[in-house]
Amino acid sequence: MYPVVGDKVGVGCLAASCLECEFCKSSQENYCDQTQFTYNGIFWDGRIIYGGYSKFPVADHRYVVHIPDNLPLDAAAPLLCAGITVYSPMKENKMLESPGKKRGIIGLGGLGHIAVKFGKAFGLHVTIISTSHSREKEAKQRLGADDFIVSTHPKQMEDKKRTLDFILDTASANQSLGNYLELLKVNGTLVVVGAPDKPMGLPSFPLIFGKRTIKGSILGGMKETLEMMDVYGQRNITSDTEVVKTDQINQALDRLSRNDARFRFVIDIAGKFAKT
Amino acid sequence: MYPVVGDKVGVGCLAASCLECEFCKSSQENYCDQTQFTYNGIFWDGRIIYGGYSKFPVADHRYVVHIPDNLPLDAAAPLLCAGITVYSPMKENKMLESPGKKRGIIGLGGLGHIAVKFGKAFGLHVTIISTSHSREKEAKQRLGADDFIVSTHPKQMEDKKRTLDFILDTASANQSLGNYLELLKVNGTLVVVGAPDKPMGLPSFPLIFGKRTIKGSILGGMKETLEMMDVYGQRNITSDTEVVKTDQINQALDRLSRNDARFRFVIDIAGKFAKT
Repeated sequence: MYPVVGDKVGVGCLAASCLECEFCKSSQENYCDQTQFTYNGIFWDGRIIYGGYSKFPVADHRYVVHIPDNLPLDAAAPLLCAGITVYSPMKENKMLESPGKKRGIIGLGGLGHIAVKFGKAFGLHVTIISTSHSREKEAKQRLGADDFIVSTHPKQMEDKKRTLDFILDTASANQSLGNYLELLKVNGTLVVVGAPDKPMGLPSFPLIFGKRTIKGSILGGMKETLEMMDVYGQRNITSDTEVVKTDQINQALDRLSRNDARFRFVIDIAGKFAKT
Repeated sequence: MYPVVGDKVGVGCLAASCLECEFCKSSQENYCDQTQFTYNGIFWDGRIIYGGYSKFPVADHRYVVHIPDNLPLDAAAPLLCAGITVYSPMKENKMLESPGKKRGIIGLGGLGHIAVKFGKAFGLHVTIISTSHSREKEAKQRLGADDFIVSTHPKQMEDKKRTLDFILDTASANQSLGNYLELLKVNGTLVVVGAPDKPMGLPSFPLIFGKRTIKGSILGGMKETLEMMDVYGQRNITSDTEVVKTDQINQALDRLSRNDARFRFVIDIAGKFAKT
């Protein structure tokens, strides 16, 4: 729902877009080619954009999202990025209306752990595909994943060929997509939502012999983001977070680079939430 | 239509499949994981498969295709491979019912030249994307392409960003898909039907920022192949061929390796068609 004065709100990754193109007009602002993000960039007026590192943000009302009362602010914050990134391709590919379908998730990080919870909430059979066994117990016992495949284990990958309907690729490391495509049934779809900085390898054979599909997806439009937050609220799905104070940011970034976040760091700029 | 005794017929790339899986039962024999091709392999009984190099082929009736009377046998022969390879993804992606849509074709060879004729027959706006200018005149004047982009020319590629609805990638050389994806509109689709032997490069940014789709497709099922041949017959679309006798095969293969086929070589095993 649209936020009103007094609501808990959040601002996600989108700060502005042209408002005039076909994508803005159909609330797919995320695909406007003038889109401005809230961080890691220079705004139209030349100023550096500090995003969540700002003392206080100023945002156009179009990019402000209502947060349901039952969701704690810190646990809801990552939904504005990871939550919508998972929600949009799942909705687009009818995974919210396909209980029993087999969905794989490559990577169990900030995106992946939300994707497990969200998938289970909609009745999917969820398989985590990871480079190591280290998070298998947590994935299954705590998050509720149904299966776990170690991608570096050739026999496991071979045994699961042609078994999945859909794969959400949340990995941000450079990789070859070939072996993952083989896990898909004929006509299966792999959606890339991670953004490796180097090109991935795409062998043609698993693509053409399995009539498989690869799609890209980034965030969601603002209408969809409002809808997403309501859906997560109704199902009471949040991100696992570690709240840190501003003087712990560098330490958190160090841990992030070692793949040691459980599962999203949230910075408590005002010092109101952090426990330590 | 199904062939009857006395018809002109042809046998394409599929020789056999399991006949029991969901794909065989729905006439998607090309996606059966037991599929046997008519050439370049070893059959279930251990014999080498010689395909079109055989003195006479023996084929199961399920894989025999009626050839319309108005299509010359030599010009229809390549349709059993190149024709169905083009037809299946165009139908699947609703390009036969979308006059005016902008479709790009990467590569103007055996597949590409048929794709131009076929696209124009269905009212599409057809753009050839090629590594060099050398075939621009032929593409436009003789085959009827509407536009021609030289992929090695950065300015041309830049100017055509976000302009195409659909791209058929017929190139069989190793390549990066990034620049081609940028040519697609948001939500556009690139179908890979060529089969480079090394993995293609797939950068994530043009995929995710444009919500683009890459699909694989190989040949078509037998029902679809019968339908394809009827459609080509109704529109009188054939492959450009050079018919060679058996003693000219090595010479033809040499020319093929130099990308000098106009556009498909057809071997006249019985010596009834070759002009020289």
